[in-house]
Amino acid sequence: MSEYEQRRRSVLNRLANLKADLKVEGLLISSPANIQYLTGFTGSNGLLLLTPAESIFFTDPRYGLVARANITGKVHVAKGPLLVEATKIIVRKHLRKIGFEPSWMNFEQYEQVRKQAGSHASFRPTGGIVEELRSIKSPAEVLKIRKSVMINSEAYYRTLKRFKLGLREQEIAAELDFQMRVLGAEKPAFETIVAAGPNSARPHAHPGPHRLEANELLLIDMGATADGYTSDMTRVTFTGTPSKKIRDMYQAVLEAQLAAIDAVKAGVTTAKVDGAARKVLREHKLEKEFVHSTGHGLGLEIHETPRIGRKDKTKLQAGMVITIEPGVYLEGLGGVRIEDTVLVTERGCEVLTPTPKEFVYL
Amino acid sequence: MSEYEQRRRSVLNRLANLKADLKVEGLLISSPANIQYLTGFTGSNGLLLLTPAESIFFTDPRYGLVARANITGKVHVAKGPLLVEATKIIVRKHLRKIGFEPSWMNFEQYEQVRKQAGSHASFRPTGGIVEELRSIKSPAEVLKIRKSVMINSEAYYRTLKRFKLGLREQEIAAELDFQMRVLGAEKPAFETIVAAGPNSARPHAHPGPHRLEANELLLIDMGATADGYTSDMTRVTFTGTPSKKIRDMYQAVLEAQLAAIDAVKAGVTTAKVDGAARKVLREHKLEKEFVHSTGHGLGLEIHETPRIGRKDKTKLQAGMVITIEPGVYLEGLGGVRIEDTVLVTERGCEVLTPTPKEFVYL
Repeated sequence: MSEYEQRRRSVLNRLANLKADLKVEGLLISSPANIQYLTGFTGSNGLLLLTPAESIFFTDPRYGLVARANITGKVHVAKGPLLVEATKIIVRKHLRKIGFEPSWMNFEQYEQVRKQAGSHASFRPTGGIVEELRSIKSPAEVLKIRKSVMINSEAYYRTLKRFKLGLREQEIAAELDFQMRVLGAEKPAFETIVAAGPNSARPHAHPGPHRLEANELLLIDMGATADGYTSDMTRVTFTGTPSKKIRDMYQAVLEAQLAAIDAVKAGVTTAKVDGAARKVLREHKLEKEFVHSTGHGLGLEIHETPRIGRKDKTKLQAGMVITIEPGVYLEGLGGVRIEDTVLVTERGCEVLTPTPKEFVYL
Repeated sequence: MSEYEQRRRSVLNRLANLKADLKVEGLLISSPANIQYLTGFTGSNGLLLLTPAESIFFTDPRYGLVARANITGKVHVAKGPLLVEATKIIVRKHLRKIGFEPSWMNFEQYEQVRKQAGSHASFRPTGGIVEELRSIKSPAEVLKIRKSVMINSEAYYRTLKRFKLGLREQEIAAELDFQMRVLGAEKPAFETIVAAGPNSARPHAHPGPHRLEANELLLIDMGATADGYTSDMTRVTFTGTPSKKIRDMYQAVLEAQLAAIDAVKAGVTTAKVDGAARKVLREHKLEKEFVHSTGHGLGLEIHETPRIGRKDKTKLQAGMVITIEPGVYLEGLGGVRIEDTVLVTERGCEVLTPTPKEFVYL
């Protein structure tokens, strides 16, 4: 049995264990990452109908060849909307109660499916099942994430080695992305952030035409997608000799990040990890400037469960891969964020990101 | 009044002209591209509530600085889900009937909003209004698309100039993407396709580790995003001297593409344009191998209305920017697709893509 078939089996087991009132006879899977997890398909138009009796994958003629060659179970190539095709089959097979992913079906699609099925079948929101399975990575998946992390850090290293004043943020971003690709990544895992000076106070700045000057913060937040799996890292350097205020800010964030990493361990709630970072920043009177959560799971997607936030009660489990990324942002001055990709283990965690965290002066 | 305010005014005019039974007192806009069109916001988390009385933009604290500095109208920075915040305000302002974008609200969000609003407000699917406005580009938007097209073609030219056998598909893709960025693009408009030999028979192949050999088709489908606007081009070259079968296939696709371009003109249905390409391929007995539609609109997004497909009845209008991209795919042998970005005019069209379409032998 292939890894994909094993995963589909696990989904069916979970469906079978749902409470009686939530019981469904099958699951329609429309999240692209969930489809990739369960079939290996990476195209832009796929849909999976999973029932105890069979797995039916739907795609359009553009992907017919690749789907038939690679996906076990039935492959159904349709010219029109895949949901229409799937609903036809649901009705034809007398499946009366089908689960669907409520955050991956939009209102328009839901209305269309509901009308098409009429009284023959009903559709019940049954979300999060595949995402929960995905949150625990297999050793093979961790290996892919390690590769992604290594590519990412090496691309960062190669690019910083060539750094000189006068480069534009967007040129640095282009170089980082190019190096990731040359090193074997399929693509950046998200739009690479290169933010200098006051721009670094915007946690999700787009790289722009600003040319790097002396005595600026330079924040780089980047990740690779390699073999389908993502990584995520943020580092901040300084072009010159930073003021005490900036050194203190860096030091506070670094301490917060290390405290959060120390808190990571199977069985601990994510809120507790978030709280560890927040506590350090509170002591430095910088808590209000930490305007986002401490981290997030990653894998096939750059944001996966669990969320490492103030109110999140999820318990960490061995095999989860998460980011730890506290940050502090001072308008007009700049921002510091330090982020690693971290593997949760029974006894603590392994920081996968190999890039050093000393404050580097370029 | 800024261009964004003018566009928001146009949306309100359209709302005011809806039939009585569709009338709503405001519109919740959640499509990222629609939000960008109406506010200039390019972050990953925004929501716009537009009523005749006011425009309220919602975002989270990561984007607070940039939103307050750049977006006219009210800016509301919320820590939790933006839809929850917007619904609170809808209830507080006694707005009883609000439109929403049904393909940009998922079932989970819809249920949440509906429950939260209770009997205070109802939500009606009111989609496509902004998309329809967006389909006609202003001269300023066409200028941005021209820039994107030029960057794209120049990046293609620079990369092909350096071409040598032995390069991997993914290395060529990395070089194309790097050149686009160096030339001023924010990013590729989509995952650049570099597909050689039999891979080129997959209309949406991912670039892989395959090294270019002599006597292969090389299909490159690429687009840039520059100043927010996209371009889209496909060219096919051959590494050596192609067989008669391949030359005939190329010639057939080229004729089909030129026939479709000839058919483009304000007032003509998109089905007619699609039919012009299909007719040529039918004459060459290659119609069945043309497995997708002839093209699509583009702008802030790489796929916009109109669709240029067999059954699409939309009438072209001056100011639309569309792709014309027939293709033929023969399993085992390879595929040929030729694609330009084209501006619809009153009297015909202007092909924006400057890259020549002769069959180039590398």
